[in-house]
Amino acid sequence: MLEDSLSEDAELWSDVQPETRRRLLLAALEAFSANGYNAATTREIAQRCGMSSAAVYMHYRSKHDLLYEISRTGHDAVLRTVQDALDETSDPQDRLRVFMSSFVSWHAHHHTLARVIQYELRALPADRFDEIRGLRRRFETLLRKELVRGTEAGWFSIQDVDATALVLLSMGIDVARWYSPRARNPEDLGAAYGALALRIVGAAGTSEPSPE
Amino acid sequence: MLEDSLSEDAELWSDVQPETRRRLLLAALEAFSANGYNAATTREIAQRCGMSSAAVYMHYRSKHDLLYEISRTGHDAVLRTVQDALDETSDPQDRLRVFMSSFVSWHAHHHTLARVIQYELRALPADRFDEIRGLRRRFETLLRKELVRGTEAGWFSIQDVDATALVLLSMGIDVARWYSPRARNPEDLGAAYGALALRIVGAAGTSEPSPE
Repeated sequence: MLEDSLSEDAELWSDVQPETRRRLLLAALEAFSANGYNAATTREIAQRCGMSSAAVYMHYRSKHDLLYEISRTGHDAVLRTVQDALDETSDPQDRLRVFMSSFVSWHAHHHTLARVIQYELRALPADRFDEIRGLRRRFETLLRKELVRGTEAGWFSIQDVDATALVLLSMGIDVARWYSPRARNPEDLGAAYGALALRIVGAAGTSEPSPE
Repeated sequence: MLEDSLSEDAELWSDVQPETRRRLLLAALEAFSANGYNAATTREIAQRCGMSSAAVYMHYRSKHDLLYEISRTGHDAVLRTVQDALDETSDPQDRLRVFMSSFVSWHAHHHTLARVIQYELRALPADRFDEIRGLRRRFETLLRKELVRGTEAGWFSIQDVDATALVLLSMGIDVARWYSPRARNPEDLGAAYGALALRIVGAAGTSEPSPE
């Protein structure tokens, strides 16, 4: 039986065809998250989904290709989640909180996938790494936009927008390292981090006691 | 030539005797940080310091023992750094800032060692893992004490002390993941995080613009 987090990750690939390719991605994710990308072998991945190593190579030329596809779909998924949450937000003052809470909830829900995409990045070949880094810059751009907007409007007091964006993303990413389903649920955690983000940017009123 | 961060890590073991043991620890740290603990082999570690695998086993029974010694000395070092910084602080209101800035500076200075001790923890055998977890709880205890003291004194406004302690440690630990010597220097980074910690706990005055 799959760990809950892996079942949720599997849903991200529900439209991958053929079915064999989908099973391979999930087996690779399991292998990479169990012992790290470098220790996983194509043979182990093949065994996890009852295939031969030769059959794996019919779908993916290398272990690198599997890591790349996992990284790309993972980054796409969190970007889409954050973007959808922002699109549903009508109050511009609420967008930073929404960015943070959706980013954090995603990392909690998908902590197995998130560990692989956040901690195995440097195992990608240079061209693939650059492509994924491009996706990662889109989070920074989105977040910086909210920070600048809030500062210009006088809602936030921030001295260094780049450093603040880095810290907020860093807090969200580290959730993947420590999160366990025994901790509080991903939505409550996201809400708590949304409130923390407002404190960090010095949003008016956030130095008063508030439910976290 | 060693990366700067590795030279600093090597100093932590400067009193390890005999010299061979010290060289082995450093070679193991290099191997674990290059490709992850699970992918490193005793043979590779031996080669990195010009020894035979048999010679390695004269000093350490297993790769686990090397990881354990690296983890223990690493956790001891950061604990001592934070404790020393707190001991030099006369103003009780300043202790949270000092905790955070020394914790963060250490993770930046020692980012290579910090990555291994923070991300390879689960590779330890159960009894060793429990021992290291005991060391980790001491950070939580130290930090919680400062948060409770500051809340009771009315300096901070915190609803959930445990969650706040978790977030502050999490922010510091993630520095090891993203830190590069091309980023700002460890002391300035520590100072910025110290100021952020005060915002997070709602310390009086921190919602006003302040240099970060």
